[in-house]
Amino acid sequence: VQSELEFISWLQEHVPPHPRCELPLGDDCAIVHVENSAVVTTDMLVEGVHFLSNEVSPRRIGRKLLAVNLSDLAAMAARPTAAVISLALPRKGGYSLAVELYEGLLPLAERYHVAIAGGDTNVWDGPLVVSLTLLGDPHPRGSLRRHGAVEGDSILVTGTLCGSLRGRHLDFEPRVDEAQRLRDQYNLHAGIDITDGLAIDLSRVLAASGRGAIVDVDLVPISEAALELAHRANDRKSPLQHALGDGEDFELLLTAPQDEARRMLADTPLEVPLTIIGEITPDDGLRQRDRQGRITPLAADGYLHRTNK
Amino acid sequence: VQSELEFISWLQEHVPPHPRCELPLGDDCAIVHVENSAVVTTDMLVEGVHFLSNEVSPRRIGRKLLAVNLSDLAAMAARPTAAVISLALPRKGGYSLAVELYEGLLPLAERYHVAIAGGDTNVWDGPLVVSLTLLGDPHPRGSLRRHGAVEGDSILVTGTLCGSLRGRHLDFEPRVDEAQRLRDQYNLHAGIDITDGLAIDLSRVLAASGRGAIVDVDLVPISEAALELAHRANDRKSPLQHALGDGEDFELLLTAPQDEARRMLADTPLEVPLTIIGEITPDDGLRQRDRQGRITPLAADGYLHRTNK
Repeated sequence: VQSELEFISWLQEHVPPHPRCELPLGDDCAIVHVENSAVVTTDMLVEGVHFLSNEVSPRRIGRKLLAVNLSDLAAMAARPTAAVISLALPRKGGYSLAVELYEGLLPLAERYHVAIAGGDTNVWDGPLVVSLTLLGDPHPRGSLRRHGAVEGDSILVTGTLCGSLRGRHLDFEPRVDEAQRLRDQYNLHAGIDITDGLAIDLSRVLAASGRGAIVDVDLVPISEAALELAHRANDRKSPLQHALGDGEDFELLLTAPQDEARRMLADTPLEVPLTIIGEITPDDGLRQRDRQGRITPLAADGYLHRTNK
Repeated sequence: VQSELEFISWLQEHVPPHPRCELPLGDDCAIVHVENSAVVTTDMLVEGVHFLSNEVSPRRIGRKLLAVNLSDLAAMAARPTAAVISLALPRKGGYSLAVELYEGLLPLAERYHVAIAGGDTNVWDGPLVVSLTLLGDPHPRGSLRRHGAVEGDSILVTGTLCGSLRGRHLDFEPRVDEAQRLRDQYNLHAGIDITDGLAIDLSRVLAASGRGAIVDVDLVPISEAALELAHRANDRKSPLQHALGDGEDFELLLTAPQDEARRMLADTPLEVPLTIIGEITPDDGLRQRDRQGRITPLAADGYLHRTNK
């Protein structure tokens, strides 16, 4: 695919029609069917910050572009519906690159029933920039918010933390289905996806809710990757520090009343781990508790490289 | 504004709340109230293609970013509701630049009652890239489409063509209100906004409608700018060639039954000019007719620099 026209033809052939979209690609705007409210998120990935073109295939970049937006919808327990995609392509080989981005993205779109509703493709003299806006339906029980944690809530996380530096930040599975299932079946108070690190994202929930938390650090589910990283000769962080501070886990961080959280764990409603890692406190501090019950302050110094909203 | 946190504070202070948005800025997604369908468009502007940072102020870039998206909604006679904005900012002075972009954009958002619902802000080593996705309500009489022109339709344009090279591509007024008013009061068959030049955008309407057209070239409303440009010593194009081929006019190109078009002109429903410039033919060619009635082919070689959808 060498030219804009060839790329448009490719798109028209490979982007499937979707019941939510009234028009095929090719008008000035897309029309997406929505019921009363649309949950909307946007994320941009740029060369050198979110990926390195010489290390990562365009397919994985395309997949990640959709996945990070899916993770934002999952954080609110919304169901994804439609996406629009903007690309700034390098002049050399840009359209072939665009096809590969889409080839990485389309299977994930199909997996989560996301309509590709439109986009804007540009060629320029700079490096690759990709941007996606994702629409979703709010959950019938209401959107999960950062706001809403109350004292006594248990803090839960899905999966295990810290795999991003080993490539998981590209290949993670967004917790769309998990968020739906938990919101369907349980009374959740607050939620966020872990993008900048457990400590910093938890502190966002606390700030929005006007509460504090104690994290039982020995309960934090640490991935194999965190152990491997910490065992490197020049690594100065413990596995726990990786799990608390490394970003791009894209797991869900939730709060729920203690009884409800215990019921969730007993039910094992998910195929991925679900772990209680601490509790919400009435004050506004973030603290950690070790195995011996000692409580000390916990710094919210996650890996911060972007603003989301 | 030097840091991300300062920029977020600035946003929270300067982006007004909006009845369409359920949440203030700061959750993982925005929630936008929508009735049944959302009209969605996205446009990205990149350094060196859509603007030159050393020649154009960030405020004008910010204004243009919203204006080009508003023009896409106008092309479908949709009413804008909410926007999300993604930025890739240069590392040096990026957040101050972001504030100026917003300062250029916010007055236009207010003018058209657009909620700024969220966004994603990134700092990187490359030049400025800005991307906006705009949602709108479809017109109650249905969205205006490229598809729909039939033989005998008159072709109309708003305003005068060709001012983009003289700066109008930055400061144009999107025809949002004009599109609403015309769609409210008249039976329109097809519409598009002129982004890549009258000839190429008309040919898009023709392709979507499976029809042809004859353009009465002496009726095409030519701007002062086209005349000035053509009078330059080294300019090889006539004012008409500028009007037909230069892009980024952001005027509306519409088709309507001949009687309806005449009624529109008699009513003068707009404050800007509205001109009949030709007619739709049953064949699929694009032709021009001169003052003497001679008909010759018209090349659709507008200024093409991007794909929209």
